[in-house]
Amino acid sequence: MPVTIENKPNISEKLKEKLVNMEARQSPFEKAVRELDVDIAKAFISGKAVKPVFFENTGRKLKATDAKLDAFSKIIAENDNNVLEGKKTLVDVKGKRVAVLFSGGPAAGGHNVLAGLKKVLGVDNTLFGIGAGPKGLLQGRLFELKDEDVARVFNLGGFDLLGSDRTKITTTEQFEMVKKTVKDYNLDGIVIIGGDDSNTNAAFLAEYLYDEGCKVIGVPKTIDGDLQVGDLVPISFGFDTATKVYAELVGNILQDTPSSRKYWHFVKLMGRSASHVALEVALRTRASITIISEEIAEKKMTLNELVEGLAKVIAIRAAKGIKHGVIVVPEGVIEFIPEFKQLISELNEAIGESEADMSNLSLNQKLALIKLSIESATLLGSLPPEIENKLFMDRDSHGNLQVSQIPTELLLIQMTEKKIDEMKSNPDKFFGKGKIDLDNEELSKFYRFSFKTNSHFFGYEGRCGAPSRFDASYTYNLGLVAGSLILQGKTGYMAGLTGLDSGARPVAVPLTGLIVIERRHGKDEMVIKKALVDQNSPAFKYFQERRREWEKKDVFSSPGPRQMWGPTSRELPFTVALNQGYENMEYSIGDS
Amino acid sequence: MPVTIENKPNISEKLKEKLVNMEARQSPFEKAVRELDVDIAKAFISGKAVKPVFFENTGRKLKATDAKLDAFSKIIAENDNNVLEGKKTLVDVKGKRVAVLFSGGPAAGGHNVLAGLKKVLGVDNTLFGIGAGPKGLLQGRLFELKDEDVARVFNLGGFDLLGSDRTKITTTEQFEMVKKTVKDYNLDGIVIIGGDDSNTNAAFLAEYLYDEGCKVIGVPKTIDGDLQVGDLVPISFGFDTATKVYAELVGNILQDTPSSRKYWHFVKLMGRSASHVALEVALRTRASITIISEEIAEKKMTLNELVEGLAKVIAIRAAKGIKHGVIVVPEGVIEFIPEFKQLISELNEAIGESEADMSNLSLNQKLALIKLSIESATLLGSLPPEIENKLFMDRDSHGNLQVSQIPTELLLIQMTEKKIDEMKSNPDKFFGKGKIDLDNEELSKFYRFSFKTNSHFFGYEGRCGAPSRFDASYTYNLGLVAGSLILQGKTGYMAGLTGLDSGARPVAVPLTGLIVIERRHGKDEMVIKKALVDQNSPAFKYFQERRREWEKKDVFSSPGPRQMWGPTSRELPFTVALNQGYENMEYSIGDS
Repeated sequence: MPVTIENKPNISEKLKEKLVNMEARQSPFEKAVRELDVDIAKAFISGKAVKPVFFENTGRKLKATDAKLDAFSKIIAENDNNVLEGKKTLVDVKGKRVAVLFSGGPAAGGHNVLAGLKKVLGVDNTLFGIGAGPKGLLQGRLFELKDEDVARVFNLGGFDLLGSDRTKITTTEQFEMVKKTVKDYNLDGIVIIGGDDSNTNAAFLAEYLYDEGCKVIGVPKTIDGDLQVGDLVPISFGFDTATKVYAELVGNILQDTPSSRKYWHFVKLMGRSASHVALEVALRTRASITIISEEIAEKKMTLNELVEGLAKVIAIRAAKGIKHGVIVVPEGVIEFIPEFKQLISELNEAIGESEADMSNLSLNQKLALIKLSIESATLLGSLPPEIENKLFMDRDSHGNLQVSQIPTELLLIQMTEKKIDEMKSNPDKFFGKGKIDLDNEELSKFYRFSFKTNSHFFGYEGRCGAPSRFDASYTYNLGLVAGSLILQGKTGYMAGLTGLDSGARPVAVPLTGLIVIERRHGKDEMVIKKALVDQNSPAFKYFQERRREWEKKDVFSSPGPRQMWGPTSRELPFTVALNQGYENMEYSIGDS
Repeated sequence: MPVTIENKPNISEKLKEKLVNMEARQSPFEKAVRELDVDIAKAFISGKAVKPVFFENTGRKLKATDAKLDAFSKIIAENDNNVLEGKKTLVDVKGKRVAVLFSGGPAAGGHNVLAGLKKVLGVDNTLFGIGAGPKGLLQGRLFELKDEDVARVFNLGGFDLLGSDRTKITTTEQFEMVKKTVKDYNLDGIVIIGGDDSNTNAAFLAEYLYDEGCKVIGVPKTIDGDLQVGDLVPISFGFDTATKVYAELVGNILQDTPSSRKYWHFVKLMGRSASHVALEVALRTRASITIISEEIAEKKMTLNELVEGLAKVIAIRAAKGIKHGVIVVPEGVIEFIPEFKQLISELNEAIGESEADMSNLSLNQKLALIKLSIESATLLGSLPPEIENKLFMDRDSHGNLQVSQIPTELLLIQMTEKKIDEMKSNPDKFFGKGKIDLDNEELSKFYRFSFKTNSHFFGYEGRCGAPSRFDASYTYNLGLVAGSLILQGKTGYMAGLTGLDSGARPVAVPLTGLIVIERRHGKDEMVIKKALVDQNSPAFKYFQERRREWEKKDVFSSPGPRQMWGPTSRELPFTVALNQGYENMEYSIGDS
């Protein structure tokens, strides 16, 4: 370095001290967000205090299925699948002992559920955290949560105050272990913060612990957004933060493309079972192309049709001189392509039946050991070799392929490259009247176009960020709902909040009203059905109406990083605003 | 979906209209940031107006090299490598015609340089944008920039108002083309916004256009942060925004790890030549491990030593029950490992010499066609096969390997996996007195530990986001500096701003004072030396002092998403605050 700093000390001791003091979650940002207020629905406000509410029957019933749910006879007898709403303050309840756990992958706002619970239980009741998720419930890993524990993580991301895991509680032995924990700690209630499976589990536990007098309440968590209950649970928590993180990144990349003018970016987003995340990011950014898995399945598209659709948009843009774009890809898309699903299922079966240890074999050797249908063999042969190899990877304990291990974004890139080459070498097949209609100058632009790509996968980045203002307030209120329900002695409900554009009202959703019988792994299982993207929903219809414009030219927007202060800090997910028929995209909880 | 929304219209027409109106950079965020003020150094304020400043000699000289720079005799004769500072208002200058271009990859704040230029030139002078970078300067692709053009992109990311490219202007023919453009448009000045190479180019152009009376000024841009000039240019613009984007993501992933408790994440960050980005992200997040390329080179570490260092930290944490962590990897690290550099250089030569077309050969066939030193052959053989294959990839036009194509993060993951297996199968080699000292219980925890990984690469995500408050203001002031210099008739300078903690003062850095002679591709070239991470700098020393703590246990912080409003919106890069000897990490420009 030829130029040095003049008249400066080597290091400022004052600054150094400030930096050391920022360690362990004491960054200026973390300190400042801990000080931010959350918005609280009016039903919980009594004078200047926050109090539990008393839930009343709304007269509205949920009934997800006509299957007879004998497994839940006790809680159905009590709840009768009635939706409840909390309007008045609950008279003081004392001496209750409540435990709470996180189940599954983290989602932003989890810590604020704990904060809401702690608040509503107040000094007269006890809140226990369960360490390491459902496994901790089995093992009795409980510890009391004090005000200062909760204050430390208030408005911060992560599930680390408790930890989490993915243990499913299904066997009699496991239920007995839970019962032991309940007895050991003399628990009056358990709050389970988790996704569809965990809430199904909450219903089973509610039934099992009914005679023990221990109440079980679920809280809807998942960044995928596939746990929704109409107007009662407009969205699971964590979805807003995750999609705001991803939308900023996709918006930044979109913004990069007309500056660099050379790349197509394929961006895969977390969310295996449903495309809510992709749809929300599409609505926020107006990416050039967004794939919605549910639409692929509905239209029974082949992989070739999907790829041809992408290549067509890329070709038309290239013909107009636009050599760049961004394609949003939902993580689970290949499972929604019927022929691919068929291929995977045939492979699962064939590999399961084969007695050979394939781990050290070449692709050809593996292929020689199995037999597929003509359709599946043709599809497999059309895939890039890396992907063929990946499809033979180790199966999970159920003998299924771990689809998340398939690099879908690379598969699509390679197939699209091939398709564009095919278009160039066989133009008559693709261009002309009734096909892609380009004039000669446009066609020559397409021929000169070189398809350069980049790929991205965003997942973990969005699960553990500090919650958006919406998620921070939403989760706090869900904690207030869950705590109120247990204090009132309700069981087998999921906490909800309705009317997010108009002050928000606490509701309780009977879990048994959501449970259906679904065939999984060859047997009937009782499950809460995942909410998929509904092609008749306002959000999807709006997307459908606008997307041709987004394909044709760059009309993208950058939603920017999520803001905790300032004019844009109160946005709701756009899909929620659309699907709920709201007139604004800002939330309103309490006075906000 | 069993539960539908009660009494709701299908879609709110009002909301739909709002959403359509957000397209094409009219999101609520984009609208709101356009309204944000920038901070302006006092020297530019005259009454209530923003005016150009008059630059005076500070008496300080820069002299980067004792090489005789005959190539710059005219500008050196005029500037004598003097540093200038602007203190007073420049008396009105009228009728000047100035053109501006972006060179190289986008960096946040570029549009605000244009806004600052437009402001300082005012209504009495004309600003032209040059389309598509240096290539546009050759081709004469100029168009007038009006107030409304600049207003549309004010405070927004990207370089798209002008576009950019990477053309280097080196041949006589090219210089003549520039001269033609200058004459055609009757230009009084050209502003070149770019990195080290583009600023070197600015010096050549300044010399070449000296007799034409056309002044050339450079503006320091690069997210990599490797264009710095002591206290005069504390940092290139775009670095702050990029590192804030990356630091949020790394912070989020760190926050994920103690919640999920199972993954080690390897995060590669853009920045091939220097590790400033990695160091800044380390200081902001306290990631478990951060690799600094310059340190690897300085210590002449082998790949095996690097990997063993990582594995050791991972093993010790596992022994204490911490099965997770985050490792930050600078994009260019393998080029800093001497033995790897040697291997790449031998391969470049061997592949260049070979007349065989290797593109369709197997790895073994390729290996049979070349001859390496024993050291390089040994290293190559120790690499995973995918990486071996990648090292035989197509060379660039100079016959060099495109190192950015090497998936360094995957290389490190695979080598670390192997090392951990080796530690388990040969414990005597690694554990014991004087080696890794673990007790039996700890050792048994390490044996039960299963090393699970994820990888990430963040680059494009950080180049085009909306500029941080710092970058937005910094770039606006750099535009004011560049415009003032041209109005005053100065040439061959780079715009600078010093004292970013105390109101900021406009300075001008003589480009010829930065140029050194470096041997590149076998011949002497005049270049601005890239600023690498200095291991005697306060920022590096602070990192060195704290990092053992960060390795041992989770003391990370989440810096959160960059904020445009609120208490944390004015942070400077921490490396800048440390290296400049500031006492605070908030910037102060003008009254802010």
